[in-house]
Amino acid sequence: MATLVSLDALTSKLREIHHLRDAAAVLSWDQETYMPPRSGAIRAEQLATLQTLAHNQFVSTDIESLLTSFLDIETGIILPEQQTSLDEPTHALLRETWRDFSRAKKLPSSFVNELERECSLAQQVWAEARKTNDFQRFLPNLERLVGLKRQEADYLGYTDSPYNALLDTYEPGSTVAQLRPLFAELRTHLIRLLDQIRNSPVQPNTSLLTQSFDTTKQVDFGRLVLKHMGYDFQRGRLDLSAHPFTTSFHPTDVRVTTRVFDADLPSCLFSCIHEGGHGLYEQGLPSKYYGTPLSEAISLGIHESQSRLWENSVGRSKAFWQYFYPKLQEIFPAQLGGVQADEFYFAINRVAPSFIRVEADELTYNLHIMVRFEIELDVIEGRVQVEELPEIWNAKIQEYLGITPPNDAEGVLQDVHWSFGAFGYFPTYTLGNLYAAMLFHQAKKDIPTLEKTIGEGNFLPLKNWLNDQVHQWGRQYSASELIQRVTGQALTPEPFIQDLEEKFGNLYQFSTQPHSQNPS
Amino acid sequence: MATLVSLDALTSKLREIHHLRDAAAVLSWDQETYMPPRSGAIRAEQLATLQTLAHNQFVSTDIESLLTSFLDIETGIILPEQQTSLDEPTHALLRETWRDFSRAKKLPSSFVNELERECSLAQQVWAEARKTNDFQRFLPNLERLVGLKRQEADYLGYTDSPYNALLDTYEPGSTVAQLRPLFAELRTHLIRLLDQIRNSPVQPNTSLLTQSFDTTKQVDFGRLVLKHMGYDFQRGRLDLSAHPFTTSFHPTDVRVTTRVFDADLPSCLFSCIHEGGHGLYEQGLPSKYYGTPLSEAISLGIHESQSRLWENSVGRSKAFWQYFYPKLQEIFPAQLGGVQADEFYFAINRVAPSFIRVEADELTYNLHIMVRFEIELDVIEGRVQVEELPEIWNAKIQEYLGITPPNDAEGVLQDVHWSFGAFGYFPTYTLGNLYAAMLFHQAKKDIPTLEKTIGEGNFLPLKNWLNDQVHQWGRQYSASELIQRVTGQALTPEPFIQDLEEKFGNLYQFSTQPHSQNPS
Repeated sequence: MATLVSLDALTSKLREIHHLRDAAAVLSWDQETYMPPRSGAIRAEQLATLQTLAHNQFVSTDIESLLTSFLDIETGIILPEQQTSLDEPTHALLRETWRDFSRAKKLPSSFVNELERECSLAQQVWAEARKTNDFQRFLPNLERLVGLKRQEADYLGYTDSPYNALLDTYEPGSTVAQLRPLFAELRTHLIRLLDQIRNSPVQPNTSLLTQSFDTTKQVDFGRLVLKHMGYDFQRGRLDLSAHPFTTSFHPTDVRVTTRVFDADLPSCLFSCIHEGGHGLYEQGLPSKYYGTPLSEAISLGIHESQSRLWENSVGRSKAFWQYFYPKLQEIFPAQLGGVQADEFYFAINRVAPSFIRVEADELTYNLHIMVRFEIELDVIEGRVQVEELPEIWNAKIQEYLGITPPNDAEGVLQDVHWSFGAFGYFPTYTLGNLYAAMLFHQAKKDIPTLEKTIGEGNFLPLKNWLNDQVHQWGRQYSASELIQRVTGQALTPEPFIQDLEEKFGNLYQFSTQPHSQNPS
Repeated sequence: MATLVSLDALTSKLREIHHLRDAAAVLSWDQETYMPPRSGAIRAEQLATLQTLAHNQFVSTDIESLLTSFLDIETGIILPEQQTSLDEPTHALLRETWRDFSRAKKLPSSFVNELERECSLAQQVWAEARKTNDFQRFLPNLERLVGLKRQEADYLGYTDSPYNALLDTYEPGSTVAQLRPLFAELRTHLIRLLDQIRNSPVQPNTSLLTQSFDTTKQVDFGRLVLKHMGYDFQRGRLDLSAHPFTTSFHPTDVRVTTRVFDADLPSCLFSCIHEGGHGLYEQGLPSKYYGTPLSEAISLGIHESQSRLWENSVGRSKAFWQYFYPKLQEIFPAQLGGVQADEFYFAINRVAPSFIRVEADELTYNLHIMVRFEIELDVIEGRVQVEELPEIWNAKIQEYLGITPPNDAEGVLQDVHWSFGAFGYFPTYTLGNLYAAMLFHQAKKDIPTLEKTIGEGNFLPLKNWLNDQVHQWGRQYSASELIQRVTGQALTPEPFIQDLEEKFGNLYQFSTQPHSQNPS
């Protein structure tokens, strides 16, 4: 049986191309962390050169002819004479490389250039527009971007909706037909739960989280938690940046960032845990397949499942704080010495409608996503005009969350995504939440002592389980295959809803309803 | 008259190639400052890919055919029909690009690969050998490297000595025939001065420099000095690394590093000033020519002249400390409150033979260089065998400095240079010292108030003078042309010797002799 050895020429070319992408990632990391203020212009040029070169090398005839010895370049179907001789990873490697190759080939180089230029421009305009709360300023750029993304969908090809072509970029295999009923079901439960929470007579005291907390100590605590999670500082580091992110240049160099505010304890803490979850995924990808899809994350949804699992299922759990709260009290005795563990736990699990997605709680977060999903779909399918977006946005936020944004900066202009052309990206956040709950439920089944070990500050059983079940496979399986394989079932919101019912039923003291029952 | 506009196609290709070199430089900077410990292997691969790609793009037929429309590719002579139509910068840009191109073309790609692999290997072996004080371990690598460098000289071509081909890499135009008499003259004076210093009844108290100094405060002071020098932190930054260095990704992103030890005040201080001098050169190169030789430093010697001018002519001067010593005393009152400015000034100007080049004083430093120059010359010209080096090294150090290294780690194994194939590099350090003194003498002539402004902490007149006289020209002039142009004379050790005579004559209280008189 042939193994990956047969692919040496292809994989070494892919590695080389990956070096260019790694270099671009290092330059981007540097840009967000340490780059001097006045070197933005040249950095954009350097990045463009690296990315264009990587793209050109990938769609080159070199790669095409290397692929052609294994598969039909038009359809991706493995040649009959190779079918039986390839082992499973090799097969997957070819399938996924062809997927990337054929998608990249469909986009004319002139189109890629135009889109990149427009995105780079739009991001700057967006940043200014948000700062000055001026949607009109961003409007022409956003209109051009929507036009380009619809064109991209046409180039890529799709069934049913052009939005499917864009979704497929971030969450391969995902479709509008799948998301619509999924989100509808989820929404019903979220709205019901939110009503119960809002009507509850008990509410947490969150002012304890907005006392003054020394920022150095906050970051040190974040680092301590990361170490416990099994994030390897020999193969990574933690820095500060305006927006927290994770980046990887190889499984031996995976970096996370956080941000820290004196009067906002949860911000640094939960972004460390969240990015740590992403970081563990990247550190857990198999080095031996570096440069190929077998050493890449499956999808943004699966990636987000890793961060959300750690942030919410672990980091906002009772067991987690059973171990860490006494430590946090030791670090901040003046602020937390008199605060009971239960009070703290309730405060970090507060649910309340708010305007800004990235500050939203575990529950309402998904309502923010649904608003964006519906708007994107309408825009890409051409049912609404870009100029109508502020109005539509505000109406939907009112509909879903019962509040109306005071201005566009806290409304339609809040997210960076559209300014870099990322339509179809938002749904992966909610998919991540659902996958996270499914995986965590399964982990609890597979590791009966899981909550006990978490309560003892020992996260290695969980980390190792995720390494085995998710990380080591790279893109060998699709998201749906992986979830089916690990949990024995297809994507479902049930475990997520069940977790919310249980946690918030207890905290806000309402009787949990069987979640299969439709409450309205 | 045609201007650079005619060269758009060439310069934009050169810019693109430079982006790859910049990316490699960012990755190298990251490697020395923030990279996690376990990612060295992949970083080496990423760097190799970037460097190979930049090299291949530079020696490509693209560049060749672009050059061919302006010059004869074999000789570099500008085509007769272009001669009159090119302005001076364009002419220089073509001349220097052709120089780089024709040198790069002479080295077969297989040879470049072999040399790079050997250097990468040798550096690791050298580091281990130095650590374990084991020259025999490094010997086979060093022998192979010497063989490869002699082969490189053959590929590049030379007159008189193969060493000239290597020298020319770092200091274009420099030759053995020029250096031998220059160093001989300098040596006579240095030996005489060193004798006078060693026999002087007055010696500084350097123990005041090895008290405990808070490292954060040391780095803050270094940053303060850099700001005064005019180093622009909007276009640069200061970080820590094992060995101080300066790197540039563009004149808007020039970074310096330092190192800091609690019980060694001069180390951080003078490395900040030294690297700051390099940094000002790089920040002062013309952005508009970025990517071309007109935005590159002339030579290592001229580069070193900038760091040495700031470090020694400025940073070890009375005027400098007139302004800064009270500030330093304020920062370290317990350590320096009772130390007179004169005592401090004498301590930082101590002269004494020592084993380690990078720790040597202003005077004996050059004797270290001469030892290396003579050894390199003998090795490359084949007069001595590599295995004899430890013995020869120790004999020469005894001859020049009157001391014998206790072991090879503090002797022949101390420098990293040979392990990365840098033969012909060392002489540029002494050339830098000589150029620095020539330039500083000229600056004092051109700016009559120079010492006064330095004493007031105002370094801008000097910085602006260097910008005008040296930095802005990039490689438009050769080192010898520039020095002639700025100082009105050819390279001479006189100003350097004069400075030493004056400073050390005063400090060590010996009567200065007319330095044209041979004292032995």
